[in-house]
Amino acid sequence: MLITLSINATTEQINNLYNNLAEKKLNPQVYQIDGQTVISVEKKDNSLELVALEAMGFVEKVIPITKPYKLVSKEYKNHNTVIKVGDVEIGSGKIQIIAGPCAVESKEQIMETAFAVKEAGATILRGGAFKPRTSPYSFQGLGEEGLIYLAEAGRQTGLPVITEIMDIKDIELVCKYADILQIGSRNMQNYSLLRELAAMDKPVMLKRGLAATLEEWLLAAEYLMAGGNSKIILCERGIRTFETHTRNTLDLSAVPAIKELSHLPIFVDPSHGTGKWKLVKPMAKAAVAAGADGLMLEVHPQPSQAYSDGEQSLTPNNFKILMEEIKRLAAVL
Amino acid sequence: MLITLSINATTEQINNLYNNLAEKKLNPQVYQIDGQTVISVEKKDNSLELVALEAMGFVEKVIPITKPYKLVSKEYKNHNTVIKVGDVEIGSGKIQIIAGPCAVESKEQIMETAFAVKEAGATILRGGAFKPRTSPYSFQGLGEEGLIYLAEAGRQTGLPVITEIMDIKDIELVCKYADILQIGSRNMQNYSLLRELAAMDKPVMLKRGLAATLEEWLLAAEYLMAGGNSKIILCERGIRTFETHTRNTLDLSAVPAIKELSHLPIFVDPSHGTGKWKLVKPMAKAAVAAGADGLMLEVHPQPSQAYSDGEQSLTPNNFKILMEEIKRLAAVL
Amino acid sequence: MLITLSINATTEQINNLYNNLAEKKLNPQVYQIDGQTVISVEKKDNSLELVALEAMGFVEKVIPITKPYKLVSKEYKNHNTVIKVGDVEIGSGKIQIIAGPCAVESKEQIMETAFAVKEAGATILRGGAFKPRTSPYSFQGLGEEGLIYLAEAGRQTGLPVITEIMDIKDIELVCKYADILQIGSRNMQNYSLLRELAAMDKPVMLKRGLAATLEEWLLAAEYLMAGGNSKIILCERGIRTFETHTRNTLDLSAVPAIKELSHLPIFVDPSHGTGKWKLVKPMAKAAVAAGADGLMLEVHPQPSQAYSDGEQSLTPNNFKILMEEIKRLAAVL
Amino acid sequence: MLITLSINATTEQINNLYNNLAEKKLNPQVYQIDGQTVISVEKKDNSLELVALEAMGFVEKVIPITKPYKLVSKEYKNHNTVIKVGDVEIGSGKIQIIAGPCAVESKEQIMETAFAVKEAGATILRGGAFKPRTSPYSFQGLGEEGLIYLAEAGRQTGLPVITEIMDIKDIELVCKYADILQIGSRNMQNYSLLRELAAMDKPVMLKRGLAATLEEWLLAAEYLMAGGNSKIILCERGIRTFETHTRNTLDLSAVPAIKELSHLPIFVDPSHGTGKWKLVKPMAKAAVAAGADGLMLEVHPQPSQAYSDGEQSLTPNNFKILMEEIKRLAAVL
Repeated sequence: MLITLSINATTEQINNLYNNLAEKKLNPQVYQIDGQTVISVEKKDNSLELVALEAMGFVEKVIPITKPYKLVSKEYKNHNTVIKVGDVEIGSGKIQIIAGPCAVESKEQIMETAFAVKEAGATILRGGAFKPRTSPYSFQGLGEEGLIYLAEAGRQTGLPVITEIMDIKDIELVCKYADILQIGSRNMQNYSLLRELAAMDKPVMLKRGLAATLEEWLLAAEYLMAGGNSKIILCERGIRTFETHTRNTLDLSAVPAIKELSHLPIFVDPSHGTGKWKLVKPMAKAAVAAGADGLMLEVHPQPSQAYSDGEQSLTPNNFKILMEEIKRLAAVL
Repeated sequence: MLITLSINATTEQINNLYNNLAEKKLNPQVYQIDGQTVISVEKKDNSLELVALEAMGFVEKVIPITKPYKLVSKEYKNHNTVIKVGDVEIGSGKIQIIAGPCAVESKEQIMETAFAVKEAGATILRGGAFKPRTSPYSFQGLGEEGLIYLAEAGRQTGLPVITEIMDIKDIELVCKYADILQIGSRNMQNYSLLRELAAMDKPVMLKRGLAATLEEWLLAAEYLMAGGNSKIILCERGIRTFETHTRNTLDLSAVPAIKELSHLPIFVDPSHGTGKWKLVKPMAKAAVAAGADGLMLEVHPQPSQAYSDGEQSLTPNNFKILMEEIKRLAAVL
Repeated sequence: MLITLSINATTEQINNLYNNLAEKKLNPQVYQIDGQTVISVEKKDNSLELVALEAMGFVEKVIPITKPYKLVSKEYKNHNTVIKVGDVEIGSGKIQIIAGPCAVESKEQIMETAFAVKEAGATILRGGAFKPRTSPYSFQGLGEEGLIYLAEAGRQTGLPVITEIMDIKDIELVCKYADILQIGSRNMQNYSLLRELAAMDKPVMLKRGLAATLEEWLLAAEYLMAGGNSKIILCERGIRTFETHTRNTLDLSAVPAIKELSHLPIFVDPSHGTGKWKLVKPMAKAAVAAGADGLMLEVHPQPSQAYSDGEQSLTPNNFKILMEEIKRLAAVL
Repeated sequence: MLITLSINATTEQINNLYNNLAEKKLNPQVYQIDGQTVISVEKKDNSLELVALEAMGFVEKVIPITKPYKLVSKEYKNHNTVIKVGDVEIGSGKIQIIAGPCAVESKEQIMETAFAVKEAGATILRGGAFKPRTSPYSFQGLGEEGLIYLAEAGRQTGLPVITEIMDIKDIELVCKYADILQIGSRNMQNYSLLRELAAMDKPVMLKRGLAATLEEWLLAAEYLMAGGNSKIILCERGIRTFETHTRNTLDLSAVPAIKELSHLPIFVDPSHGTGKWKLVKPMAKAAVAAGADGLMLEVHPQPSQAYSDGEQSLTPNNFKILMEEIKRLAAVL
């Protein structure tokens, strides 16, 4: 950590700060850089919040030198994390495809979709039972009934299933049916939920928050890993920007950036990332070219009649065409 | 709702869509506006997601005409909501001041702060016991011990107390000690939490999410009100933008905008809104001038030694000076 | 255009507005949609600013139905614009690669780079002579000297050259040396410059503004086309968001979105889009997979010694490797 | 400047970098901070772009210690800049009010407005003759005719006048009529224009760019001051964020922040900052409470018929009411 001081800082102020830091065993060192006084400290205890020193009028800025996350970093573990779910290996080099409807709407709907995506090449089935909806008047999901249908569709197709968990009360219930637990964008910083899922033995997909920096996202993953769960899959799904043509702005540069910073696998969700089904195909291919470990795609047998996210869902036929293109792409990458 | 169609839409497509909408009893009407075909529908059932129609290639855009929230709107209730907490009236025209430390750190710290802010003119005491922290290694709050100290400080000073609740597991516990429940920025769209607090008989302060539009914020409040709790206090605390000089960008225009859209009272938190104690004073005054019903301010006896948010906390003395300035300001507004 | 009225609008207010619109020959029609009064108008004259009607207290919102741009739209021209520069065809399906240093620094530097990128497969040479720099103390470019070297490097390698123009005073000068004129991000809404370049017979590359929506970007292109110049190449180069890990956030979804809205070719600049050379390779490949017509890449013989943008420049060797990967990719797309 | 190195940097790499920096007379010093190697350098020559060192794989980050601007900083000049325009003193403590229509539309319109705002208490008259419009089909201003009317209205009311300049070709013309030159938001980083206006003897109002950080804004002002013009008035007018309820997000915290960083006066434009006339009044008062040196307000005799910005313009009567409120407010601040 570095503490830069105002050029108006007095010798007495500098000495007092130095002594205060020395008492805390932070090994302070004073330098002159570009005409400014700078104090470096060795921060051994992560719970110490040195940024509070900015409360002193003569402290200009507290600048961290090292990264705030550890366990999820490449420095901590230099080879890629591979997660096995049934026969599916995530992070091992082969691109994995999660597909299915936004929400499970009926047994027929999830069955039809499951068989269609399986045949086209999907390796994991998705389907929401508890839906986080912006409006209290929107369809909120079928709850356990949806979980039962999803698990049944997984069983019949042989696909592992993933579903979102929003509430710590539902953990036991969801764990009964799901192979992978999904933490949605809105809950990326729901630390209670993170702490509970850290204690589970199930893989967790952690979607990036709408307004989360890469650093905050990795720190949310650090909550899981520090709590004991290292089976973490990150998923980029678009961030909020000023652009309104798309629902979100899909930040594909997060893929190679995360690959450089962390050993965790990273997926991309171009359905939420764009909010427009016509953009899903090109952005899915772009995600693969950028180095993603997998994709998460919304597929619905009749998108215009979907209870949610229909406008960004592919038909089974469009999904099939995309899968073929991805296969060709993956072959040359 | 309006559905605008592509100029390439065929008569058959338009007829099919019309019939489909008519079958759903949506009373479709077809118009030509600026050379484009537009269909209006009467949307009686809010759970219907017409935006899914954009999944049809020939549908250009689905445009809502009416606001998506109801109970929290000015159209629903034309006079301001006033919330009584002990002797304190929120929303009645008198500016209320919530003050106290970010986190309760010890009995001494909260007691000292409570007496200082009370004497300077604060009317509600704040203090965190469960802290949502970006890093798992940061101080996470004293838990129940913190709640006990906070309640005791409230009792001794006669100030009602407010504290953040992060987890539905803690509701009973927090309700035992707190007079107002705070939903933090990160949990604004934690719908499980919203649903549970909607069933409580306590006032709830709902902070604006870091990346929430006014509409999404009001929809989160709608969750509370639709669930039965109408004692809602909104609190603007800064949104995330590209500017990094301040921790967040305090969106003060939200104050008059919310006043126009809703009957709910709105507070402003310039401590989180700016992240810099030197900016808290001017922005607190600006918030009052913009029409806020109250302020939420972080005060710490020794900010540079605080466990969290020290850099944005006022000393008791700076708080006192600000209170005097606010009094003069309020007198002319 | 649609004008939605407040539910408190009186019959007299509605009648007055109706009459006012009728007098202006806007063919107003009054509807009731979802319980709200809505007036549609036929807006023939684009200079009319109906949004000003929001100044009336009882007008809620003025909603445009049709797109504000025309000549650049797909509705106006249904096949892709192809631009010929020497032997190079832009927009015809073959991916074109613009490469070279951010700034021309010396004759040797631009010559060395030009031969290297040509050999690796670049088809157009870039190099800045007038540099828009955030600080007045940064290197501002060699001016005409730089143009002379750039043109010479173009001649010797047989590559057409592109360079940025910042000032209408320099148009004649730059046109003497350059084959394509570049309008930088900061000047996307410099309407004086747009109007002057609209009168030139040279192709113009219009970079997206840092904070420009797709609509504003296309409207800037509309200035060029309405002024007579239809040889326009759009270039996505990253937008400004809250994320600070990358210099900008490269919005690759702009590529398929623009392809749907407009007939103009679109390039991607992953150098500025990421600001980090390690991210340039994956994002260049992603851009191609997303459907870009070409790439713009910064290449410098010794990036760490560059006068500008060194941190985001590829070495000739890294550029060569990337070109080979792009070739393989393009073959399967 | 500080250069932080990767923990994988080899001794040879560190030595080579050290020698390279020493050769450039940058006085490198090597430290170990928090287990990481850090090199500090003394950067005397501002044109040197050390960030290019990030092009080396083993360099993690180049961190500036000192501010990049000088002449506009508080460190350079510790007392506030006061600018005299006729009898009006800007920055001296008295709040100055710039008012008038967005665009001069006719002689009658500007005359009527000028007398109305003068009587209500405005001290400077605004009116656009050259308008930067997003669409080429919108009203672009009356040009010199508008300047003539504006100057005449200024003469008759005794108010100094301000108008926007977009094009270096128009400098002589605009200088003939205007007392203060305005650089609009879109041109904040039009360095050609900045350089030309730096050579003028007229005060310049520099509006903040839509997506400009405080640092970039001050660097744009540095262009003016380094070029010889120190009569600079900054004007906050809203930044672009994800929120769409308002046209922009008015960043009032920029006011006290700029006051801390710079000696230049700062105004606020709540008309553009909000885009909604109903929000202008509360935000104007908030700006004054935040410490602004003045306001810029759009006033039109008949906003709903305005050629531009009608929706955010005050009527003369609303302006008068606001002026009275501001007077009362200013008295207690």
